[in-house]
Amino acid sequence: MNPNTNPPGGTRDFLASDLRKRRAVVKIIQEVYESFGFEPLETPAFENLSTLLGKYGDEGDQLLFRILLRGEKLQEAMREANSKEQTANGKKLYNLSDLALRYDLTVPLARVMARYAGQLPKFYKRYQIQPVWRADRPAKGRFREFMQCDLDVCGSSSLTVETEVLAAACTVMARLQFKDFSILLNHREVLRGLIEAAGIAAELEGTALVAVDKWDKIGKAGVAEELVQRGIALSSAQKLLALLEEANALNDNAARLQYLRQKMKRPAALKGLDDLQTVLQLSEATGNANRLSLAPNRARGLSYYTGAIFEIVVPGVSGSLGGGGRYDNLIGMFAGKNIPACGFSLGLERILLLLEERGWFTETNAAIDILFMNFPENLPEILSLATRARHAGLVCDVYPEAANLKAQFNYAAARQVRYVAFFGQREQEMGKLRLKDQGNGNETSISTSELENALKRFLVPGMESSL
Amino acid sequence: MNPNTNPPGGTRDFLASDLRKRRAVVKIIQEVYESFGFEPLETPAFENLSTLLGKYGDEGDQLLFRILLRGEKLQEAMREANSKEQTANGKKLYNLSDLALRYDLTVPLARVMARYAGQLPKFYKRYQIQPVWRADRPAKGRFREFMQCDLDVCGSSSLTVETEVLAAACTVMARLQFKDFSILLNHREVLRGLIEAAGIAAELEGTALVAVDKWDKIGKAGVAEELVQRGIALSSAQKLLALLEEANALNDNAARLQYLRQKMKRPAALKGLDDLQTVLQLSEATGNANRLSLAPNRARGLSYYTGAIFEIVVPGVSGSLGGGGRYDNLIGMFAGKNIPACGFSLGLERILLLLEERGWFTETNAAIDILFMNFPENLPEILSLATRARHAGLVCDVYPEAANLKAQFNYAAARQVRYVAFFGQREQEMGKLRLKDQGNGNETSISTSELENALKRFLVPGMESSL
Repeated sequence: MNPNTNPPGGTRDFLASDLRKRRAVVKIIQEVYESFGFEPLETPAFENLSTLLGKYGDEGDQLLFRILLRGEKLQEAMREANSKEQTANGKKLYNLSDLALRYDLTVPLARVMARYAGQLPKFYKRYQIQPVWRADRPAKGRFREFMQCDLDVCGSSSLTVETEVLAAACTVMARLQFKDFSILLNHREVLRGLIEAAGIAAELEGTALVAVDKWDKIGKAGVAEELVQRGIALSSAQKLLALLEEANALNDNAARLQYLRQKMKRPAALKGLDDLQTVLQLSEATGNANRLSLAPNRARGLSYYTGAIFEIVVPGVSGSLGGGGRYDNLIGMFAGKNIPACGFSLGLERILLLLEERGWFTETNAAIDILFMNFPENLPEILSLATRARHAGLVCDVYPEAANLKAQFNYAAARQVRYVAFFGQREQEMGKLRLKDQGNGNETSISTSELENALKRFLVPGMESSL
Repeated sequence: MNPNTNPPGGTRDFLASDLRKRRAVVKIIQEVYESFGFEPLETPAFENLSTLLGKYGDEGDQLLFRILLRGEKLQEAMREANSKEQTANGKKLYNLSDLALRYDLTVPLARVMARYAGQLPKFYKRYQIQPVWRADRPAKGRFREFMQCDLDVCGSSSLTVETEVLAAACTVMARLQFKDFSILLNHREVLRGLIEAAGIAAELEGTALVAVDKWDKIGKAGVAEELVQRGIALSSAQKLLALLEEANALNDNAARLQYLRQKMKRPAALKGLDDLQTVLQLSEATGNANRLSLAPNRARGLSYYTGAIFEIVVPGVSGSLGGGGRYDNLIGMFAGKNIPACGFSLGLERILLLLEERGWFTETNAAIDILFMNFPENLPEILSLATRARHAGLVCDVYPEAANLKAQFNYAAARQVRYVAFFGQREQEMGKLRLKDQGNGNETSISTSELENALKRFLVPGMESSL
């Protein structure tokens, strides 16, 4: 019987070569987030089920990984499940779980805001880079365990926040050498104003937004059809789409702002335009205004946005690499009051895929600086040399067993070793360590008495060749 | 209604100050592990239930966090649970789960060894630093979510492996400035030999080991009592304890080796002594022999050890900070063959507690280098200066709102800011940024045109005062 040794569907094992890439990207994201004054936060992998239930809609509730009750509590719950049955949508409901895996990083942040209210600064700027879990049907590029890289500012309604959050996102993208990205910018109230201007009733606004949100996937005609299916008059649907398309077709942000300003009457919508204009102006100061592009047809499905909405896109890549916006009514859900908030989440998995495609990951550097070959008669001396080399800052491995050189070289190749080091009888007699460059085959000998000084040159980039 | 905003029992939220400490320690562990040529590995938070069940004994099975089946599979499982009942130990058994949270890092490693056999090097040296979850009763210092820091070498029986694994553990402890640690060393076959020498039957060996393992907690008399309760003749129990105590009482490793060699006859036990002697000798070469102390009464409960056993201890601290050993029959469980292995796990949570007690964490460095105060009339210029300062490598925050200076200083204090920066009307007229050191109150002005050069001095330790 061969046991199944695959990781569970939708999850992945990360071996060293993958992990080095992931860590390189996460390190950059983290450095940028911290440079903007964001503090790290980590929360437990699971939350009380009651913390998560009802926060992500019915579909989200279905996608939670729930943890089974344990011990006597499970026995009791099963007795109860048998005695009184509850059903919903024709399915039986059971209360067999007390905990569930984290589904996103926003609800935990809301819980943290309530729990530690007294000890957090007036503006809580936090980033959180941790996995989340969703019981989605696994598919190519869709995982059940994946990383989120969130950054949020809680506690301020100032547009400085939007500006800084956008600047952080732009800086990450620039550090990752995306030369062609842009951030699409919209505003919930602007969308609302356009829907009103198209003659769509306020109560159909939510459903209209869901349809508009699909523009990227199903195109204008598809959205029109969907709007009508959702009970919106054809004439209104056509008017809305014309407004969006005309605005989008204009050359620059200034022209789009001017166009939209003429088309809407709602004070809140005009205020939304003012806000976007301010964010664009302040972004001149951060050097990112040229990355921002007004896109009135972007809705970002999540209905919780209350102000600016943003989405990172790269030409030729469908979907977004991340997004966010202002959501002033969510973070206070556990604190029992409104807490303004604005944030951003990067789609690490998509970014990694794209970086890979674009050859961003240079030839993985050798994992091991020096592999010391095993000469059993000199093993103590070899271990001592390896110890000194490690103290000098080098990554060293020692071939653990007595074996012929062929086997040892095979291992060196499998481990991506820069140099193999020989300290056999001849080298010992001469008091020298012989190093062979695995890249070009060159050999050098260094005096063991000056090992540290000689090896330190390894650490200076560009000096290896003169070793 | 006040929702419960605590993290689930036995889990913790890590705010920035905690997280910085944890990350500082993990970084050192990771650097040391990598310097020995260990590669990183990460596996999913959950495994298929069948991967984990039966691997940790009955108690371990009870402590697994199982994930509830979803959708139709749950409905089906509940129908089945009602129709045919299984019981064990008077409790009903239910098959309601397909996945369970990772309980340790060793079983996932065994799965990885089988799954990726073809692509891993002949000796797989991996480290893994990830959380594990156990449904233990939460208590002070006992968590349901905690980090493990494992390092293992798979594929070699050479004692070079033990030597290098011990050297890595010693190096971590030294880097963490534990001046007083030692690693207790024992060998499964030596314990077995002593048990035989005491006249205890081979089939009672396992139960005798469990009793001996409690020496640290219940003392010699307690162990004697427990041995008798476990069916061992009083005379044999006394003989075993006398052997262990006499060996332990000897001054040094050489004397203990000599003593033990005289007391045992089993060839495997004598071979075990030879192995320990070799490890001690090779550890002279790595500079760690003086940290190693033979301790024949250490059994490390886990019965899976087959060779050397080690345990890190610190005087005055009960229990261990980590431990490991050789276990040649475990890692091959999914591969269907024996794969020799030897490794080590550090108890991060205990190490963190101890470092905290010992004042290892120096005054947390300021989280923010510069907080730019908000002067609304100059906001674009301020954002531009902050952007330039970040490019120069500094961590900067901008107070997001218009507010009086008192409120802004309060925030500066809450965020642990090194300098606050003023760019109001006066500073703008002079073209200077005024910086106030939050530590000593000193003020300096730097010309905005030379911002980068002036700020770079921040980055050179010891240069701050001459800014």
